[in-house]
Amino acid sequence: MKDVANEAGVSRGTVSRVLNGQPYVSDEAREAIEAAIAKVGFVPNRAARSLVMQSSQAIGLIVHEPHSLFVEDPNIGSILLGANAALSEADYQLSFMIADTTRDIERLARYLSGGLIDGVIIVSARVGDPITRAVADLGLPAAFVGHPRDIGDAAYVAIDNRGAAREITNRLIGTGRSRIGMIASALDRDSGSDRLAGFVDALGSRFDPQLIEPVPLYSYSDGQAGMRALLERAPDIDGVFASSDAVAAGAMDVLQAAGKIVPDDIGIVGFDDSSWATRCDPPLSTVHQPAGELGRAAAESVLRQLRGEDPGTSGRVLDCPVVWRASA
Amino acid sequence: MKDVANEAGVSRGTVSRVLNGQPYVSDEAREAIEAAIAKVGFVPNRAARSLVMQSSQAIGLIVHEPHSLFVEDPNIGSILLGANAALSEADYQLSFMIADTTRDIERLARYLSGGLIDGVIIVSARVGDPITRAVADLGLPAAFVGHPRDIGDAAYVAIDNRGAAREITNRLIGTGRSRIGMIASALDRDSGSDRLAGFVDALGSRFDPQLIEPVPLYSYSDGQAGMRALLERAPDIDGVFASSDAVAAGAMDVLQAAGKIVPDDIGIVGFDDSSWATRCDPPLSTVHQPAGELGRAAAESVLRQLRGEDPGTSGRVLDCPVVWRASA
Repeated sequence: MKDVANEAGVSRGTVSRVLNGQPYVSDEAREAIEAAIAKVGFVPNRAARSLVMQSSQAIGLIVHEPHSLFVEDPNIGSILLGANAALSEADYQLSFMIADTTRDIERLARYLSGGLIDGVIIVSARVGDPITRAVADLGLPAAFVGHPRDIGDAAYVAIDNRGAAREITNRLIGTGRSRIGMIASALDRDSGSDRLAGFVDALGSRFDPQLIEPVPLYSYSDGQAGMRALLERAPDIDGVFASSDAVAAGAMDVLQAAGKIVPDDIGIVGFDDSSWATRCDPPLSTVHQPAGELGRAAAESVLRQLRGEDPGTSGRVLDCPVVWRASA
Repeated sequence: MKDVANEAGVSRGTVSRVLNGQPYVSDEAREAIEAAIAKVGFVPNRAARSLVMQSSQAIGLIVHEPHSLFVEDPNIGSILLGANAALSEADYQLSFMIADTTRDIERLARYLSGGLIDGVIIVSARVGDPITRAVADLGLPAAFVGHPRDIGDAAYVAIDNRGAAREITNRLIGTGRSRIGMIASALDRDSGSDRLAGFVDALGSRFDPQLIEPVPLYSYSDGQAGMRALLERAPDIDGVFASSDAVAAGAMDVLQAAGKIVPDDIGIVGFDDSSWATRCDPPLSTVHQPAGELGRAAAESVLRQLRGEDPGTSGRVLDCPVVWRASA
């Protein structure tokens, strides 16, 4: 800073005022300082600028998921990449953080309060999530991917999980199945409970609660466990809505090991349209989840908030069409 | 800060000097200020502390990978989770950043210079990587996952890619194959070029360069493309070393579509021991890559550097045993 001041022929205090964005600096002095900065090669310390400008040019993306799921869920990677692309265009740095253990969550809440992050994108929040509360308390610009019930009028980008689940269940019914069950993951989240609601909508009076198997995660191994339980309870089951493609893949492997032919003996449909779906044999009928677009739209919402623009409606719902393949 | 100054009965300048760690403050004033901070509930802004204490309590993990690969490579998720666990125990926040485009890399280099990150873990660096250069120029505490040739005596945690590739190729030779090829990904990285070197070591005088197909990425689709090219050039090929499990999965699907039976007509082996390996049918013989441990060990190295401890040797090589299944 001394070199810049010498070069510009002004005091260090004046340089500091310019860097701090304070008023009462003449245009001449400002220009001389900017020219001096360019000449001297002075890079203002980012932490100093962050302190002064209330900006770090970094946006956090927080995923609240247990370890195992994070590794196998391709949606998270796609959301991350979509958000990164939008932030990169606006010259913001994406900083991705995992909240897994209680310790993670507490540390993350402290970190968010420190001013090193200008805003956050929150993925997989549960109802009553401590991270949601921390972000609200701090008043950080935020956008949710998904729509937990308790985020008030915070911005979110979501899909219509209930409508899509209803639609794919109707397609499954349309193939002539009469004993249709569901492996229902993550009922503590809006996505999981909405998919179950859509399934119940579609079956109407034919809905049999005995054919619902709740499992904790959208994971391959929970798909295996859920399918084993359903087969034991209802050996005559002839259709399954698995609440994600990874769940469907686990279920399909259990069915095939049990000597069932998909789709002849039993039809199965998933949700996500991830690489799990095309790697299944037969390939999965599923719902296309626009994961990259969800990440991008959430990032754009945070950027609009940072620019002080009117967000319009707080929520945005993206399309998620059914993709019909050979598994049902 | 004003409240703290009032409570302590000192000037705001004195409070600032204490927060800034500057000398020339009496012990009495310092104690009064610390008591006042406790009483008033003043939380120093993290960016301010970062500026002053030269610490943000955050460690970056940078992955230099194109989009497509990031989503489908389970190693990256496992490395991330291993590093997160180690950092979480030490109360450090992990901040994960992707470097994909040139624009990403430039922004990231600026971000790293800003003091918002105390150290970095670097995954998938190439030789001549601009991120490696930026980190070296800044003198940031760093540890590499993998061992690019040009990182000097910087810390790294790696596996013996060459030795493991030699061992699994020898196992493949031991099954009686005589026309063994390789789909060789990422030859611009130490992992890719070392795996090719191990393959060449094992084949010795039987090595036929016609049976090498270089492809850019460790990806399913590059596995498909590589296998198609090999089949066209050498229809009599009876063994393939695919440089990752995702590559092997792509190759296996092409082989099966071409009517080849694995392992009867052609044996195939991979590298990683990821979920791709167990999802293949038949399941893949492969090399177990300790991805979580690589992330953890790299994080521990950065933490040791931050504590000013003697790092001992700069490099650490973890075991990666062959896991023999049914594909060869």
